Amino acid sequence: MADLKKLGEFGLIDRFRSRLHTRSPRVKTGIGDDCAVFTTQTGTIQLISTDALVESVHFDLKTISAAQLGRKVLAANVSDIAAMGGKPYLAMISLGLPQSTPVKFLDELYTGLETACQAYRIELAGGDTVASPKHLFINICILGEARRNRVFTRTGAQPGDQILVTGTPGDSSLGLRLLQSKKKKSIALTKHVRHLTQRHLEPSPRLDEARLLARSKLRLTSMIDVSDGLVQDLTHLCTPGRLGAVLYEAHLPRSQALESICKKMGYSSLDYILSGGEDYELLFTLKKEDAKKIRRLFLKAHTPVSLIGEVTSSPGKIILEGENGGRRNLKPSVGFNHFKGNHRQ
Amino acid sequence: MADLKKLGEFGLIDRFRSRLHTRSPRVKTGIGDDCAVFTTQTGTIQLISTDALVESVHFDLKTISAAQLGRKVLAANVSDIAAMGGKPYLAMISLGLPQSTPVKFLDELYTGLETACQAYRIELAGGDTVASPKHLFINICILGEARRNRVFTRTGAQPGDQILVTGTPGDSSLGLRLLQSKKKKSIALTKHVRHLTQRHLEPSPRLDEARLLARSKLRLTSMIDVSDGLVQDLTHLCTPGRLGAVLYEAHLPRSQALESICKKMGYSSLDYILSGGEDYELLFTLKKEDAKKIRRLFLKAHTPVSLIGEVTSSPGKIILEGENGGRRNLKPSVGFNHFKGNHRQ
Repeated sequence: MADLKKLGEFGLIDRFRSRLHTRSPRVKTGIGDDCAVFTTQTGTIQLISTDALVESVHFDLKTISAAQLGRKVLAANVSDIAAMGGKPYLAMISLGLPQSTPVKFLDELYTGLETACQAYRIELAGGDTVASPKHLFINICILGEARRNRVFTRTGAQPGDQILVTGTPGDSSLGLRLLQSKKKKSIALTKHVRHLTQRHLEPSPRLDEARLLARSKLRLTSMIDVSDGLVQDLTHLCTPGRLGAVLYEAHLPRSQALESICKKMGYSSLDYILSGGEDYELLFTLKKEDAKKIRRLFLKAHTPVSLIGEVTSSPGKIILEGENGGRRNLKPSVGFNHFKGNHRQ
Repeated sequence: MADLKKLGEFGLIDRFRSRLHTRSPRVKTGIGDDCAVFTTQTGTIQLISTDALVESVHFDLKTISAAQLGRKVLAANVSDIAAMGGKPYLAMISLGLPQSTPVKFLDELYTGLETACQAYRIELAGGDTVASPKHLFINICILGEARRNRVFTRTGAQPGDQILVTGTPGDSSLGLRLLQSKKKKSIALTKHVRHLTQRHLEPSPRLDEARLLARSKLRLTSMIDVSDGLVQDLTHLCTPGRLGAVLYEAHLPRSQALESICKKMGYSSLDYILSGGEDYELLFTLKKEDAKKIRRLFLKAHTPVSLIGEVTSSPGKIILEGENGGRRNLKPSVGFNHFKGNHRQ
């Protein structure tokens, strides 16, 4: 019999998708994108997404504070709405609490949630609070609205489209490694270390940038947020079985902090950039002619954006073109998979 | 320091409510009702609710099948939408799965969800599937729509309003007791036993009845679904600290099955009726003059409805008027409280 380990998260999603029938013409995009897209009776475009985070699977209370956790869980959900070009406005929260949870912890968690709700102008409208025998869990369901014809999905890229990414992916997962390091005490709390751990503990979803893209006339063909790792998330944009991509190693954005710490610790910076997770950067594809207009657009938001590759017609192939011109195949499965236990957390 | 046991679920909700600020004029009803009520940009009335169910807190896989669990978890959420007079149309599901979960179990769970989605015409638009170290959990977030000015909240009852309930509360919790009974083998699987266990395992939310009420011109002043027990849920309609209620023992609806099994087993049928849970019946208050019109309305739906009491101006007092005219105070806290561990499950 099939088991969860073999199936993995994406196998499971495919299995469920095949069993569930979309019936309503109101649901435009169902299972398999960052959000589901649907319309209300009067036709406004709504986005909805849900994310569950479980103690000791997704977070460790030894490395993240309650307030940080509250802010981060909301940021991750806001990022799903941003990834489709929308604007979040309402969230529902479910908490599963072991009986031993200190009320002080909950107060701080709610303070974190409240801070994030204020920052992103989201209403925390309700939820459910239940007992959980062993592990704390948090589920957020978030709603957003989008402009008609400006909902960016994962499907739509064509060969020749340019691949772009905001910020510097990899920082968050390296930050986590530093937080988890047993030799932590020997790592000086330098500016770089602080930058990287901060990127992990207090990520900023690219909401303003997503709104800039949605309001622009740029011909975006697909978008996703980098939550499972750059290569893993890129495979979702390369309509499975139909498209591939080439990434230019020389153009991959690297933060000074990542370069410096990887050098010092003997880590491969490329590994972190390609397969780190939880960066909440925007990864998107754009018609070639529009690629040069993007920098001007993003100057307004003071956000770095890098053109890192191109969509190809080689099904399922993600190629890394090295600085010396060599090419190598990247495995698309290096990303995050809860059931195979290879998530860095 | 305050702890969860002392605070209880409702104490926690109050604590969170006081920390969270409603900012948006779009949110009409926030934390504390069956659903949150908000409007879209174009003004349609939306309802949203979320419920988390945790293995060995809310369900026991020894007494409920995966398909039944799938149907029941959706039914419980549909009931929240019904309780406010709305019509559900979309659900998001999060699953937390121990690595040992058999894929067959998940297939059956999804079959149950799919059956319920078809029955209630709901689109399962997406969700999240994550690993959970020990216990399975399910979170559903459900969306519905309601007619303008026909959203029934928990607040609005006035002294003199009549209290009505659909169906026969208590059956579900007695059904659960039978399922859990160690002497199960000695209980013959009679028609009555089957009826009661069925009421627990396969509850039917009163969606059609709620729609009838919303479309009628009856002056409903408040409504809730009976999920935590009749008395517990009634206290929510008696605006805390302002109103009370008198219940007429002789008018409390009792199923033949409940009467017969309680007699046979030596249980108090009144206890089950007053403090059972998970009945998903509608409990509502109505202007006195409209009370007689209700039976005619519900004849259409073939649903029994009983006038069981009256709202009073005695703050916090829920009085049971006995068949012999005696009156006794009911404790409003006999219902469900996860953190005090007195939930029957």
